[in-house]
Amino acid sequence: MNLTEFKLAGGDTIPSVGLGLWKIAPDAVAGCVHRAIELGYRHIDAACDYGNEAEAGVGLAASLESGLVQRDQLWVTSKLWNTYHKPEHVRAACERTLHDLKLDYLDLYHIHFPISLAFVPFEERYPPGWFFDPDADEPKMVEQPVPILETWQAMTELVQAGLVRHLGVCNFGVSLLRDLMASSETKPSVLQVELHPYLTQEKLLRFCHQQGIHVTGFSPLGAQSYFSLGMAGDEEGVIDLDVIKSIASQHGKTAAQVVLRWGVQRGTSIVPKTSRSERLRENIDLFDFELTDIQMETISDLDQHRRFNDPGDFGEKAFNTFMPIYE
Amino acid sequence: MNLTEFKLAGGDTIPSVGLGLWKIAPDAVAGCVHRAIELGYRHIDAACDYGNEAEAGVGLAASLESGLVQRDQLWVTSKLWNTYHKPEHVRAACERTLHDLKLDYLDLYHIHFPISLAFVPFEERYPPGWFFDPDADEPKMVEQPVPILETWQAMTELVQAGLVRHLGVCNFGVSLLRDLMASSETKPSVLQVELHPYLTQEKLLRFCHQQGIHVTGFSPLGAQSYFSLGMAGDEEGVIDLDVIKSIASQHGKTAAQVVLRWGVQRGTSIVPKTSRSERLRENIDLFDFELTDIQMETISDLDQHRRFNDPGDFGEKAFNTFMPIYE
Repeated sequence: MNLTEFKLAGGDTIPSVGLGLWKIAPDAVAGCVHRAIELGYRHIDAACDYGNEAEAGVGLAASLESGLVQRDQLWVTSKLWNTYHKPEHVRAACERTLHDLKLDYLDLYHIHFPISLAFVPFEERYPPGWFFDPDADEPKMVEQPVPILETWQAMTELVQAGLVRHLGVCNFGVSLLRDLMASSETKPSVLQVELHPYLTQEKLLRFCHQQGIHVTGFSPLGAQSYFSLGMAGDEEGVIDLDVIKSIASQHGKTAAQVVLRWGVQRGTSIVPKTSRSERLRENIDLFDFELTDIQMETISDLDQHRRFNDPGDFGEKAFNTFMPIYE
Repeated sequence: MNLTEFKLAGGDTIPSVGLGLWKIAPDAVAGCVHRAIELGYRHIDAACDYGNEAEAGVGLAASLESGLVQRDQLWVTSKLWNTYHKPEHVRAACERTLHDLKLDYLDLYHIHFPISLAFVPFEERYPPGWFFDPDADEPKMVEQPVPILETWQAMTELVQAGLVRHLGVCNFGVSLLRDLMASSETKPSVLQVELHPYLTQEKLLRFCHQQGIHVTGFSPLGAQSYFSLGMAGDEEGVIDLDVIKSIASQHGKTAAQVVLRWGVQRGTSIVPKTSRSERLRENIDLFDFELTDIQMETISDLDQHRRFNDPGDFGEKAFNTFMPIYE
C-alpha cells in the first residue's frame, strides 16, 4: 500500500505529508522550506494568515531555480483569509499570495474559515489577522457577512483564470459542506480540519469519503501545536502517552511518527509543522512501517472530541470576541 | 420575572411552554391538544413528520369553535419536511399542514432539518418520513440537494402571502445560521434544537442571544423521549438523578418540573411531549417557583454533550443511510 500520495476525486494526487507553515518564524521559513524539499517534501501548506508567505516564497524560488524540484512536482496550498471573503477581494488576495510565494499558480486554495471579517486594505496591514483594529482599547473582530457561496463563486473564477488548480475549505462541518455542494457545481477537492488522536472526527471523514472529498488534517500531533499558545494543558500531549510510546517501540519509531503514520494510514494527508531539521526528516519518514489494525483502533479509541483550535474559544480570550463556528 | 412568554426580535411573544406533538399517538392527539388548551397551554408544536397534524387540527378546531381560546391567543408551530425543500413544493407543503391543522396561518414555520430528501408526492405517501421507498429491500434515504437559501426564500414568500407569521429553522448549528443570515434579509425568528441538562449547548444559545434569535428546546427532559425508541440507555434519565430529585424536593416540585423550569429559566421555550392529563398539568406548572443561581449552575454542569436525536446515528440504524448533520 503506497501512502505517499492520495488520489483526489478528479484524478490528481496530493502528497500525503506536507510541511505546515503555521507558526514557523518568518526568518526560519525560507531555509525550512528549502530543507524540506531537499528531504523529499513535495507539499507545502501555507496561508496568508501565517504571516510568512513571502519568506516561504524565497525558499520555494531557491528550490525551483536550483532545479532541486520542478514546479509540477510540488503541491502548494494556501488559504483565503477571513477579511477577503467579498468577491471583489478574492482575486487580489490570491494574487498577493502568489506574489509572495513567487508562484504562477497554487495547487490548492482554501477558504480558511467559514467566517467573514471586515476588509482591511492590503497596504494598511498584511496579514490583517483575526482582529480589525489593533490600536483600539479593546480589539474586537468585526464581522462582515458574506454568503459562503459568493466567496466560493469568486474562487471558482481563480480556477478558470489558471491561478488555482483545486479549491478547498478549512474548518467546515458536514452541513456547510452539504449546502455548498448543493449550491455550486464546483465541489471542494479537499477539506482541511484539525485531526489527531484526541479529535478523530470519524463521521466527518466518513462523510467526506462518501462525497469524494479528500481530507487533510492540521495539527496532526494534537496538543504539540498549542502548548506554546497556552491553548493546551501540559497533560494533553498525545505523544506522551504510554500506549503511543509502546506502539512506537514495537516499530522502532518515535511516538510522533506513530501518530503521524496513523493519520496517513487512515487516508488523510497531514501537514505537521516543524522548523527543526531532524524533525523535518522524522515527520516524513513514515513509509517503512505499517500499524496493525489493532494499533490503528487503539489510537483511534483515544478520541476525546478535544478541539484545540476553536475561534469560539480563542477569539474570546485573545480578542474579546465570541465567534463560534462548531456549535 | 415573568417567564410565561418570551419576546422575539420583532416584538412578538412566544409562550415559553408548548405541547410537543412528536410521538403522540394520532388517536390521542385531538383530545390531548384540547385538554392542553383547557389547562392553559397556548403553544402547540406540530410538524408534518409527526404524522398527526390532521388529528391536532380536530383538537384545535374544537378549542377555537367552542371559544375556549381565540386564534390570536394561540401560537402554533409546524415544520417543513425534508422532502419538500425544492421551492416549488414549499407552499404546497405549508398549505397541506394548514389544511390538516384547520388553520389559516401558522405562527411559526420551520425548516425541520438541514437535509433535503427526494420529493415524495403527497398522494403517494403522507407524511413521507425519513426514507424514500418503504418497499425496497433495503430502504435508503435519497438525498436531493437543494440550497438552504432557495428553500428559505420560498418560505419568505409564505410570510408575504400571510400563511406564516414567523420563520425558523431546526437542527441548525451556528455556521449554518451565520451563512443563512449572511445570505438572506429574513433572519430566523426562532431556532429549535435538542436541549436538556445532558446537552446544554451554551455556546449555541449564547450565539443566538447575540444574534437576536430565540431558541426553543425540544426533548427538554432528555432521554425520556428516547427510551421507547431504543435511542437512550436505561441509565441516561436526567430526571432519575439524585441531584435533580434533591432540588425538586427543596421546591416541593417533581424532578421533571425542575428540569423543565431550568429550561425556561435559562431563556429557552420548551416543547415537552405528553399525552397524559396529569403530566400535561405538571409540565406547565413551572411558574410558582424559581431555581437559585447555584441550582441553575448545578443542572447546567450536568452537560455531557449527549445528543439523542442525530440523523447521523439513527438514520444509519433505521434506514441504512449515513447522513450526519452535526459533525
